[in-house]
Amino acid sequence: MALIVHKYGGSSVGTVERIKNVARRVAYHYKQGNQIVVVVSAMQGETNRLLGLAHELSKTPDPRELDVIAATGEQVTIGLLSIALQEMGLQSKSYTGGQVRVLTDSAFTKARILSIDRDNIINDLNSGKIVVVAGFQGNDKDGNITTLGRGGSDTSAVALAAALRADECQIYTDVDGVYTTDPRIVPEARRLDTITFEEMLEMASLGSKVLQIRSVEFAGKYKVKLRVLSSLDDPESSAPGTLITFEEKNNVEQEIISGIAFSRDEAKISIMGVEDRPGIAYAILVAVAEANIDVDMIVQNISESGHTDFSFTVGNAEYEKTLKVLNEQHDSRKFIAREIKGDKSICKVSVVGIGMRTHAGVAAKMFRALAEEGINIQVISTSEIKISVIIEEKYLELAVRVLHKAFDLEQAPVL
Amino acid sequence: MALIVHKYGGSSVGTVERIKNVARRVAYHYKQGNQIVVVVSAMQGETNRLLGLAHELSKTPDPRELDVIAATGEQVTIGLLSIALQEMGLQSKSYTGGQVRVLTDSAFTKARILSIDRDNIINDLNSGKIVVVAGFQGNDKDGNITTLGRGGSDTSAVALAAALRADECQIYTDVDGVYTTDPRIVPEARRLDTITFEEMLEMASLGSKVLQIRSVEFAGKYKVKLRVLSSLDDPESSAPGTLITFEEKNNVEQEIISGIAFSRDEAKISIMGVEDRPGIAYAILVAVAEANIDVDMIVQNISESGHTDFSFTVGNAEYEKTLKVLNEQHDSRKFIAREIKGDKSICKVSVVGIGMRTHAGVAAKMFRALAEEGINIQVISTSEIKISVIIEEKYLELAVRVLHKAFDLEQAPVL
Repeated sequence: MALIVHKYGGSSVGTVERIKNVARRVAYHYKQGNQIVVVVSAMQGETNRLLGLAHELSKTPDPRELDVIAATGEQVTIGLLSIALQEMGLQSKSYTGGQVRVLTDSAFTKARILSIDRDNIINDLNSGKIVVVAGFQGNDKDGNITTLGRGGSDTSAVALAAALRADECQIYTDVDGVYTTDPRIVPEARRLDTITFEEMLEMASLGSKVLQIRSVEFAGKYKVKLRVLSSLDDPESSAPGTLITFEEKNNVEQEIISGIAFSRDEAKISIMGVEDRPGIAYAILVAVAEANIDVDMIVQNISESGHTDFSFTVGNAEYEKTLKVLNEQHDSRKFIAREIKGDKSICKVSVVGIGMRTHAGVAAKMFRALAEEGINIQVISTSEIKISVIIEEKYLELAVRVLHKAFDLEQAPVL
Repeated sequence: MALIVHKYGGSSVGTVERIKNVARRVAYHYKQGNQIVVVVSAMQGETNRLLGLAHELSKTPDPRELDVIAATGEQVTIGLLSIALQEMGLQSKSYTGGQVRVLTDSAFTKARILSIDRDNIINDLNSGKIVVVAGFQGNDKDGNITTLGRGGSDTSAVALAAALRADECQIYTDVDGVYTTDPRIVPEARRLDTITFEEMLEMASLGSKVLQIRSVEFAGKYKVKLRVLSSLDDPESSAPGTLITFEEKNNVEQEIISGIAFSRDEAKISIMGVEDRPGIAYAILVAVAEANIDVDMIVQNISESGHTDFSFTVGNAEYEKTLKVLNEQHDSRKFIAREIKGDKSICKVSVVGIGMRTHAGVAAKMFRALAEEGINIQVISTSEIKISVIIEEKYLELAVRVLHKAFDLEQAPVL
């Protein structure tokens, strides 16, 4: 008997009919002899409707109250799915995040999970119940309702799987796995049977959008077997999806690059002519971090006559806020710069692959492919298993296509 | 400085604009120097929408899961009202029932309040905050979400007022007080400045519908000053509403009858030719009570040749369920009767007044007024301060009008 955590997003539970479909899939896996915990999101459109009401009342609604409002979306779904399972003759019980209890910090609207109590759920599973848990939410130590931010239901599912020592955490989505890149841009894109945790981390953070990055981090940290599958297939005949593994592949020779990731949700911030002294990066970024703005790429150029240029990227939604924070820091002389400027019409494109570690020449191949199409590279950033470039947003599709082709990703690797 | 509990129902918070109006009224009273706790219902239509989703999935959805779903309605409202108050520059904090904590029993969908923690709310009030609490809901001892049943927000408000030792509990509705009867039926109906707790109890239970009966019971038990006011008036120039008092009026001579109450939501159940032995009423009603069906009037006729007829009334919604329970009891020989029958096309009309205690002749006047219109009385039931009759439903309006006239209720009492 295996303990499996399922996770279904907003579109999978968007209507009563779809909730019935989820119930049928869960019932199928339960009847195969598994213990099942189901993590669900709010019905599609519901979170936006609820936050829309709040934003009608205030341009900057209190984050604590936003979480009180938003958390109701998942709470409705758990009750409905539980009823749908009971209607099929199964025993089922719903849990809000607070009831589990999923303990988080108090960073409302973007809280982080600190711990999860497992005893009640284990007791329910052992008595034959299917347990339905509200994703995306928890309680802080004072009992305030918190939410994990958009996409947080994936994180809830993985964290629950870790806490319950589940055999597998299955994320059901509207795609049947992780592809070498977005098939809407490159029709030849290919589904990967497996992808390493590190590659997935880069793919997710770089915009593949199949899984939320924090869920992959969690999975890696707690060695949760994570699988991405389609919620559209028949339960009986569904494809195996893509399994995220924690071992390096053996065939690094063949498969240097796993995929091409990209993100449109990027804005570039540049601080030009800043004094080059120890602590200057901290002076610039501390206020950004304190405003809870997530910074992605950070690049500092070589110093010239005691001054340097410092760039980083943030999500588009935090672009204005970031500029405001930086200008305040600058006005109060926390750092001195010639100019603070930004650009929202950029995107990020990355090649990702665990095999890159042992192979030179990936960067050269990438830059040549882009240069041949006349695409100018604004910023370059590399890690052990990925190379990312910032380019003009209008070149995104072209860049992804030429890179997919340059690295022969349409071909399945010869094992 | 007074501590006032306000309660606003679903229509008062039905839109974002109306929530802003509630915020303005609360702000007005707060700025008069009062501490304010606001209890709110779900936005109008929301509870029905949520329960409708559940009923699409099952004809008999699990009550525990129904409460999980239904409780979200009020949770959304508390967040929105809190944001609206903050937008006016006030400090505000929302509480779900569980966060307060409102401890209830585990009778899902019709739970009863056992206790309320006051410390957190008192601390918030003392630090200048306006506290917004979700009505209608609580948690049982195991942390399950419970709801108090329809209209339960009134009960939440009164129970909170009792726990907080509030100076007054103000129930804002779409009427500006308690009337001698429904003005839609009798245009001459008059707003009462005060009504005794006992009269209000009879008026509420008999269908005046201004307040939920359990809230009035709570108010009486804990001596909470309860006032019914209009949520439609301007805050600055609003009428004083009707105060529910706990002292008998001095002028019992003038004001014998306070009002004419009525209810269409009645169904009559008759058990004919039942063996007249000790314990028979218990044998009949125990299963009804165990099925959580509220019984209203109970009448047993004089015994004839060892057999008697036994009648009682229940809400229309529980009519079929009641007959089913009784027939099961009968089939399993818990009692033996000649016939079990029911009638949904009846109504109840009552005259209510604290002065009735000291005056004979009220019943005679009531029965004569009905007889003069040819209205047949099917069942009669009396208490110290009310006389109720069951009549055919089609005569309801006529009966209310002739009784209002017979007792001169259109005239203000001479004090």
